[in-house]
Amino acid sequence: MQLSKDQLRAIEEQRGTQHSTRRATVPPLDEILYEPFPVLDHGFIRVIDYLGSDSAVVQAARVSYGHGTKRLREDGGLIRYLMRNRHTTPFEMCEIKLHVKLPIFVARQWIRHRTANVNEYSARYSILANEFYLPTPDHLGTQSATNRQGRGQPVGASEADLILKLMESDAKSSYEHYRTMINEDEDGKPSVADRSGIARELARTVLPVSFYTEWYWKTDLHNLLHFLQLRLHAHAQYEIRAYAQQIAKIVNLWVPLSFAAFDEYRIGGFEVSRRGRMVIRRMLTGEHVDKASSGLTAAEWTELMNALSDQDP
Amino acid sequence: MQLSKDQLRAIEEQRGTQHSTRRATVPPLDEILYEPFPVLDHGFIRVIDYLGSDSAVVQAARVSYGHGTKRLREDGGLIRYLMRNRHTTPFEMCEIKLHVKLPIFVARQWIRHRTANVNEYSARYSILANEFYLPTPDHLGTQSATNRQGRGQPVGASEADLILKLMESDAKSSYEHYRTMINEDEDGKPSVADRSGIARELARTVLPVSFYTEWYWKTDLHNLLHFLQLRLHAHAQYEIRAYAQQIAKIVNLWVPLSFAAFDEYRIGGFEVSRRGRMVIRRMLTGEHVDKASSGLTAAEWTELMNALSDQDP
Amino acid sequence: MQLSKDQLRAIEEQRGTQHSTRRATVPPLDEILYEPFPVLDHGFIRVIDYLGSDSAVVQAARVSYGHGTKRLREDGGLIRYLMRNRHTTPFEMCEIKLHVKLPIFVARQWIRHRTANVNEYSARYSILANEFYLPTPDHLGTQSATNRQGRGQPVGASEADLILKLMESDAKSSYEHYRTMINEDEDGKPSVADRSGIARELARTVLPVSFYTEWYWKTDLHNLLHFLQLRLHAHAQYEIRAYAQQIAKIVNLWVPLSFAAFDEYRIGGFEVSRRGRMVIRRMLTGEHVDKASSGLTAAEWTELMNALSDQDP
Amino acid sequence: MQLSKDQLRAIEEQRGTQHSTRRATVPPLDEILYEPFPVLDHGFIRVIDYLGSDSAVVQAARVSYGHGTKRLREDGGLIRYLMRNRHTTPFEMCEIKLHVKLPIFVARQWIRHRTANVNEYSARYSILANEFYLPTPDHLGTQSATNRQGRGQPVGASEADLILKLMESDAKSSYEHYRTMINEDEDGKPSVADRSGIARELARTVLPVSFYTEWYWKTDLHNLLHFLQLRLHAHAQYEIRAYAQQIAKIVNLWVPLSFAAFDEYRIGGFEVSRRGRMVIRRMLTGEHVDKASSGLTAAEWTELMNALSDQDP
Repeated sequence: MQLSKDQLRAIEEQRGTQHSTRRATVPPLDEILYEPFPVLDHGFIRVIDYLGSDSAVVQAARVSYGHGTKRLREDGGLIRYLMRNRHTTPFEMCEIKLHVKLPIFVARQWIRHRTANVNEYSARYSILANEFYLPTPDHLGTQSATNRQGRGQPVGASEADLILKLMESDAKSSYEHYRTMINEDEDGKPSVADRSGIARELARTVLPVSFYTEWYWKTDLHNLLHFLQLRLHAHAQYEIRAYAQQIAKIVNLWVPLSFAAFDEYRIGGFEVSRRGRMVIRRMLTGEHVDKASSGLTAAEWTELMNALSDQDP
Repeated sequence: MQLSKDQLRAIEEQRGTQHSTRRATVPPLDEILYEPFPVLDHGFIRVIDYLGSDSAVVQAARVSYGHGTKRLREDGGLIRYLMRNRHTTPFEMCEIKLHVKLPIFVARQWIRHRTANVNEYSARYSILANEFYLPTPDHLGTQSATNRQGRGQPVGASEADLILKLMESDAKSSYEHYRTMINEDEDGKPSVADRSGIARELARTVLPVSFYTEWYWKTDLHNLLHFLQLRLHAHAQYEIRAYAQQIAKIVNLWVPLSFAAFDEYRIGGFEVSRRGRMVIRRMLTGEHVDKASSGLTAAEWTELMNALSDQDP
Repeated sequence: MQLSKDQLRAIEEQRGTQHSTRRATVPPLDEILYEPFPVLDHGFIRVIDYLGSDSAVVQAARVSYGHGTKRLREDGGLIRYLMRNRHTTPFEMCEIKLHVKLPIFVARQWIRHRTANVNEYSARYSILANEFYLPTPDHLGTQSATNRQGRGQPVGASEADLILKLMESDAKSSYEHYRTMINEDEDGKPSVADRSGIARELARTVLPVSFYTEWYWKTDLHNLLHFLQLRLHAHAQYEIRAYAQQIAKIVNLWVPLSFAAFDEYRIGGFEVSRRGRMVIRRMLTGEHVDKASSGLTAAEWTELMNALSDQDP
Repeated sequence: MQLSKDQLRAIEEQRGTQHSTRRATVPPLDEILYEPFPVLDHGFIRVIDYLGSDSAVVQAARVSYGHGTKRLREDGGLIRYLMRNRHTTPFEMCEIKLHVKLPIFVARQWIRHRTANVNEYSARYSILANEFYLPTPDHLGTQSATNRQGRGQPVGASEADLILKLMESDAKSSYEHYRTMINEDEDGKPSVADRSGIARELARTVLPVSFYTEWYWKTDLHNLLHFLQLRLHAHAQYEIRAYAQQIAKIVNLWVPLSFAAFDEYRIGGFEVSRRGRMVIRRMLTGEHVDKASSGLTAAEWTELMNALSDQDP
């Protein structure tokens, strides 16, 4: 991640200001406000603003369940109760706004989370910077044999070398042609005097999906946790997972009780099917059950055995 | 509106606390935070929290349109441009959370605005208070003859008297029976020792829709302005309009530039149809156009003439 | 449920027509189209239209996963795979439209499912019929001692008698007053000549939430299954559960493979937490684990033991 | 647009089947079901299924407004009334499902319409075809001087020649490298025996956003009309406008009354601001108003004058 001097100055300015407010604040999140956390080779995530905290979740639950709940449960217990029973609306009472720089192919997966607000940098208005994603060799995996959508082991050094060279030279040459098509220099003057150039919205069609874009993205805590559950998953593409992992750290600073409950009931837990339940019951009575006698498919059997093994997710 | 001593104390406590934050704040909104503004006879609206300001709208627009916009337009001009051209996503970058006390029949209209987060007081968990809406005589209108869904002139004094007595005695007797069915006193003990009482979720079915409920309601500025446009409208039922009017004042404190643009392009403007446009063109050439020669329906003609008359909305 | 002669004739007419279409059809669902299925004392559910079938789910999945999937899996296997792994978007490719008659308090719970389209009978435009929900004595339960929001055992006969009499007389008298306030007879003439009456939107505020309303409700299969999961649950109020149970039968006719997968992975399954998983692991090694040594809360322990007991959900 | 023999056969098969149904059908739409309509150089739109018709809009409005409406208005009049007054929910009662092939940069604009269901071809699972968008010379416009996001006049022949050659050679070479990185031939065997190749999800990052993708896209009529209003607009990028124009023809076949009302009140109409209204009033009294005395900004003045000129949109 490299920020321009202008960007660094703007961030310093934002971070340097302190206001007084009656609103609930979360000091550990305030502490990192506006700060860019690097993701991948050129990407970042910055927290721009937030609304609510663990207390807002509790407050919303208590308006629903009445004041009786106050005596019954401490905040942490109430939050765990809500998470366990999928009472999701109180988690919608917190909101966060992020500034994210990310490759287009990651943005295309991310945008599928529809319950969010987005303002993206427009390549119709503005000229894109010469920044594209290049994997590190250890993330350059083969097509996975077991998971039809994922990647397997890293390729060998010479294969990696061949591929990274192709990736880099293609991206560089695309960008060069993009600028040729626009025919506009840094000061907005024609690069070549006697050429007209074409519209930005057309020229950008030659850029690969590895190029970086930026957006402001705002969502509520319930939908953010759902995003995390899908995008922290081992089946998610590595590059979006890298963003999810950074966001998970931010959520942990912001709403530690909610995040702990999320970890307990979503990330660390697992779902058992009707037949899976029968298998566990039979096992608990001491019966020996194997794949053939379980009534499960091969994939279900593997998943259940993994969930019951010692390897933690 | 009457608040209990406990409620007043809790509000004082919330209002008394000041935090330091790096987040953008809006001092005029901070000033009224948590304060209950009365609506109707027992209702209120309180601002609980907010995220963003007019600057957040501008900031989001600028990430889309690039830095060039910075030189071109001042904030107010950019916001008016966004509003005029229905570039709605930057307005989604602001969020507000309200605590509202409102009659059930108003809540039923309000909840139709789906892009919002809600936590409502649950009459399955808790006992409802003895508070119901009783119109003032001047709002006790007849069924409108011109607007099939609305109300016309106030009824006469004796009619009003008859009706308000019926409304009040029905509500009181329903509440009394509700408490009889629950059979539970203030301390959670049976009111009548040898009766079991029925579940709250069943007993509440006898209460009229004039009874008050409460909720936390959180939405973004774009959807809030859409709510206002529909619910400030003369065709909206008076009781929900009363809430919309209070919210409009709050929005004006929060995002004065956005609210001014909303007033200019939505509230104070009007929409002309394809045929309506032809009518205006013909008029501007000096042609005399009347209802018959306009090609408009009677309703469209009336609306257009009203829009072009001196009476301001 | 009682339908007027006009309504019955309209339904017969709808059911009597057959069209020819290239669209995919589901004959068992077509067979019951427009037919009213009774729910509670005066409610019903009718299927008005539908789009898609199990094949549409498969078709959508295959556009995502490519044609390779065709060879790999049969339709049922693919649908189970999607359900197990919460790949929810293919289920959004089916849509259904229902006509529902339901008490207002049920409508208030139902409407919280936001991803749906609704057109409700408007009591601002039209006069409500004299139909209200009266529980049968066996559903007249006490407030539950164990579940703070639910109901327990049915009350005794004399208590039931007392309560039902109150419910019925209150509803009847409210309706009578409602008509008095409107002062309009069947032909739209004043019931009492020298009274003006008040607007419908005001008069209806005296009616209890036990009164019936009607709506068209349209949603996609993914959101419908989510509705069913929450509303078939034992913790859902009995009255909305009755609607969910009827809808479940309809879904089973419409998309039997999707419904079977839903039953296997959602209804018949259960979710285990991180700590719950440890408990099962310890038990499987033969260790004796009890509530105290489990590390679970009392509620979690009970839920886990129930899930592992012989009692099927 | 070129379809493979397999695709053509599948379409013929779909089109050849006729079913009998009780559902409402729209014969002109049924007539073109499954048929691919070409858009741009390799794209298409196919209607896969639909639910509802103009009658469904009317039916939904009548459940809201009660049976009285039946006598008052014909269907067309009611639909115009709904459109004029932005009573949008009845239009949500119709649903359509399209199969679309489109360039990635168009898909990125399209997906911003969030209230829709989507299943897209996944380049993580499957290998993308060698199909990319190449503008025709007459669409190869310069950056617009007046509209900061759009394109102006077509460039000259030699400029066009230069640019199209760059576009084509870049796309071809990117695709070649994509296949090299995957190292998999048509039969799924390694193209080069001793190389491992990398995962599809990585290799595809080198492809430009001009490459074609495919999806199933399903939405309701209200949201579809909103899509059309934005994407038929002169400010929309030409390439997505081409899709919107094809969809507009389809909507006209499907719901001709709704489409006519949409054309009357949305496409052919215009919105006047509070100040714009004052200007029209003054003009109608015979006053000469010019830009300087209008109180409007330059852009607003131009828009108003255009709306009142003879040039129809």
